[in-house]
Amino acid sequence: MKLLEERIVKDGVIGEGDVLKVNSFLNHQIDTEFISKLGEEFYRLYKDENINKIVTIEASGIGIACLTALYFKCPVVFAKKSKTSNISSDVYTASVASYTHGTVSNVIVSKEFLTPSDRVLIIDDFLTKGNALIALSTIVKESGATLVGAGIVIEKAYQQGGEMIRRMGIRVESLAKIASMDVRSGIRFAD
Amino acid sequence: MKLLEERIVKDGVIGEGDVLKVNSFLNHQIDTEFISKLGEEFYRLYKDENINKIVTIEASGIGIACLTALYFKCPVVFAKKSKTSNISSDVYTASVASYTHGTVSNVIVSKEFLTPSDRVLIIDDFLTKGNALIALSTIVKESGATLVGAGIVIEKAYQQGGEMIRRMGIRVESLAKIASMDVRSGIRFAD
Repeated sequence: MKLLEERIVKDGVIGEGDVLKVNSFLNHQIDTEFISKLGEEFYRLYKDENINKIVTIEASGIGIACLTALYFKCPVVFAKKSKTSNISSDVYTASVASYTHGTVSNVIVSKEFLTPSDRVLIIDDFLTKGNALIALSTIVKESGATLVGAGIVIEKAYQQGGEMIRRMGIRVESLAKIASMDVRSGIRFAD
Repeated sequence: MKLLEERIVKDGVIGEGDVLKVNSFLNHQIDTEFISKLGEEFYRLYKDENINKIVTIEASGIGIACLTALYFKCPVVFAKKSKTSNISSDVYTASVASYTHGTVSNVIVSKEFLTPSDRVLIIDDFLTKGNALIALSTIVKESGATLVGAGIVIEKAYQQGGEMIRRMGIRVESLAKIASMDVRSGIRFAD
């Protein structure tokens, strides 16, 4: 998506350790009118799939998911991070390693909010190694809901996450795919 | 707001320890079309105040803030919870005690996203003892921005938070004010 690629080039800051900071419009400050346009693009890609629920993970995914859900006219369910390994029978749980923070946490979703009749679109800000997306996919599948696909704002295509998940048969639509990135030469997008 | 009061009565679950769970439309699953109507009401209340930035706190505030921001056509900045006392010179920080979780954490906002020219509306899901709202107010004031007021979805009016903050001269608009609440007799709203 040209609009997004231009914005990443304009406002993204490449940091040490393969970090791309997009805090000015996505991860800390949210440019809601701009993110709403990304939501419209997710709708264009998935509008024929009868999506009735969007699943994301706190915290950075919530804004994008809500602004996207308005187009689908459906609710958002956000998986919560839990410090304890929650073994309650009321929740679906999966563990997720954070690429940014170097931690492992559990994410939980109450069983009442995912049912076999749901057709789910997963929305998230970044796809790198795919850990968050796999955790969310696991939860969606465990619930018996249909996982229609995922909508990602920025995929680091040079990491293995996206390729691995697509090989699992999951449809992944990323609005910007970064082919390579470093402080000196900047960002190159995949076609 | 009648629509909200009816929804709280219909879907809210009163738990032990003065807990009101509204997980089905606000705090875990987000009924985006419904929450968008609350955003429209915040806009009606504050539309003449030239709001150019909405500030909230992760995670539950983000969805409401984003859906409200679309009416104001402005960005959202969400304060991040930080386990460490962040003393970086790049961020504003304040400590906040969580009523629900019984913990104290620090919240931070990057200085680049709040400036003296900003006119800020704070949005949050609950107002109980006022800890989160005071922390956000402190950060907004420290930045030199103008704090126009706060928009709260549910205020527990029998706690001292809202009264204390209004006495500080801060405008607080709560869409539902609970006068009393318990498992047996249910919820009574303030006028």
